[in-house]
Amino acid sequence: MEERKNNAFNGAYSILSSEMRDLYPSIEILDSPPNPVTFLRKFVSQNRPVVIKNAINHWPGLTRWSEEYFRKKIGEFQVTVAVTPNGYADAISNGRFVMPEERKMAMSEFLDILFKPTQDKKGVFYIQKQNSNLKDEFSCLMEDVDAHISWGTEAFGAEPDAVNFWMGDERAVTSMHRDHYENLYCVVSGQKVFTLLPPTDLPFIPYESCPSAVYKETNEQFEVVDVENLDSIDDCSSEVSWIAIDPLEPDLEKYPQYSLAQPHTVTVNEGEMLYLPSLWFHHVQQSHGCIAVNYWYDMDFDIKWAYYKFLEKAVSYH
Amino acid sequence: MEERKNNAFNGAYSILSSEMRDLYPSIEILDSPPNPVTFLRKFVSQNRPVVIKNAINHWPGLTRWSEEYFRKKIGEFQVTVAVTPNGYADAISNGRFVMPEERKMAMSEFLDILFKPTQDKKGVFYIQKQNSNLKDEFSCLMEDVDAHISWGTEAFGAEPDAVNFWMGDERAVTSMHRDHYENLYCVVSGQKVFTLLPPTDLPFIPYESCPSAVYKETNEQFEVVDVENLDSIDDCSSEVSWIAIDPLEPDLEKYPQYSLAQPHTVTVNEGEMLYLPSLWFHHVQQSHGCIAVNYWYDMDFDIKWAYYKFLEKAVSYH
Repeated sequence: MEERKNNAFNGAYSILSSEMRDLYPSIEILDSPPNPVTFLRKFVSQNRPVVIKNAINHWPGLTRWSEEYFRKKIGEFQVTVAVTPNGYADAISNGRFVMPEERKMAMSEFLDILFKPTQDKKGVFYIQKQNSNLKDEFSCLMEDVDAHISWGTEAFGAEPDAVNFWMGDERAVTSMHRDHYENLYCVVSGQKVFTLLPPTDLPFIPYESCPSAVYKETNEQFEVVDVENLDSIDDCSSEVSWIAIDPLEPDLEKYPQYSLAQPHTVTVNEGEMLYLPSLWFHHVQQSHGCIAVNYWYDMDFDIKWAYYKFLEKAVSYH
Repeated sequence: MEERKNNAFNGAYSILSSEMRDLYPSIEILDSPPNPVTFLRKFVSQNRPVVIKNAINHWPGLTRWSEEYFRKKIGEFQVTVAVTPNGYADAISNGRFVMPEERKMAMSEFLDILFKPTQDKKGVFYIQKQNSNLKDEFSCLMEDVDAHISWGTEAFGAEPDAVNFWMGDERAVTSMHRDHYENLYCVVSGQKVFTLLPPTDLPFIPYESCPSAVYKETNEQFEVVDVENLDSIDDCSSEVSWIAIDPLEPDLEKYPQYSLAQPHTVTVNEGEMLYLPSLWFHHVQQSHGCIAVNYWYDMDFDIKWAYYKFLEKAVSYH
């Protein structure tokens, strides 16, 4: 009887995994944007990702946005750039959760670093500040895109909480994580590759608790500085629980349970949009100089959330 | 460590229960029907019940349907009636899952039994055949209602799978169960009282496996006849797993875990509709002669279903 109970989790997780494999075998691609009803019924309600083509064809940004256009239009503007030695911002490295160095610079300097690299410039630079930066530091570019995705806004019942602008080095990687948002992610130039895992794969995804730290470049050398030694960052927790696995090179000896996870690899090309549902784990790579805009809409905290919290609690006993 | 694992599910169930209590504190009442987008976003996607007023005001049935009208219009028609000694059809009784005796009779005879009871007529009579009987035995009444609920059909993306007609004795009770359907339940005359439990309460709801049987009246006495002794019913399983608890009088000594369940009691009055989401457990009582029509729409098998199967598997180890 005790033995049966001990095996309960594993048996239940394998049902969850096999149901999801059957119900979400692949990521659908739509040739045109769905209407709000179809989007809600087939995707949002079902927490099901989808790639949508021809949804942003009318954006001026799709033809305008280029190095030259940015130099002319916003070259002098100060922008916030995440800098790391290796492209990994917000990721576990040598037992620490390491955040990027945030650096302010003129957009033209960022473009020089990205497109005219010199030997003496160390590090990987990525514009990735997710505080609705498109409406803030890049507000001049708002005329080149939509302020919101109309059918998305109608479906979600409110305007987006944040609109973010992304641009950077091909070495810049977003490590696996999940957000409490419904996400409409649009690639304006270049290509992004998403590795997606459903929320139900949580039991197979290893988290580690680490002291948090930030990169800091001094004399062209990157140091890792623990947050607890920093006066300037007082809104960060000094300990962070983060996903320890790299889905591109999973260490299955250390984390054998990850072999049961079911990653979907989705390429989002120029002019395409990904609906990335709330709570889906995602890891993102990009082509060099890729430019993207994403819309974060509030998620509904409903039965799916309650089930997720249940899973989280069950997993915490392992 | 083993002890922690053994307690894991109980800890996880209590998180699930408390999240659901916070997220679904009560059943909302709408004063008018929602549009398909709102219905999907706020209710279907969230698997959240809602009572909807003023959604069927235009139905002729709302004023026409009466004993007299039915006698005149369909009095001679043969209809299928479920007969039990006590009002409990499809429920556990003395360790057996007992189904009603299905009897064909003229509608006028059914109305006599319901409204002109005599001492010599034993049993409780209920029209409750859920095979889209409104489109079949009661097809003459279709002109008095809508063939489907337009905003529901748009939201669900297809016409209903079944439209059922319900009428019967106040003693007739529908025992606690769940369906694989999205349900729009309309009360045309009288009142229904639903006791609802969310799918996430599964861990607290006791199931028992019983031999199945049917009631059979002979010489004004009801017998319980095991299905395995019946040649006529060959499409029934001889063993059925069914919910063992009566939410009106729960036996908490036998099933103490049920005290953690969170029943919602919802009264649906004449002219009102209940959206009863897929997989919600429900127990139904009614006023005498209550007339209702319900629409069963296909449910989507999505992440909510996967989580439910996970819960079912976890519970099976107890």
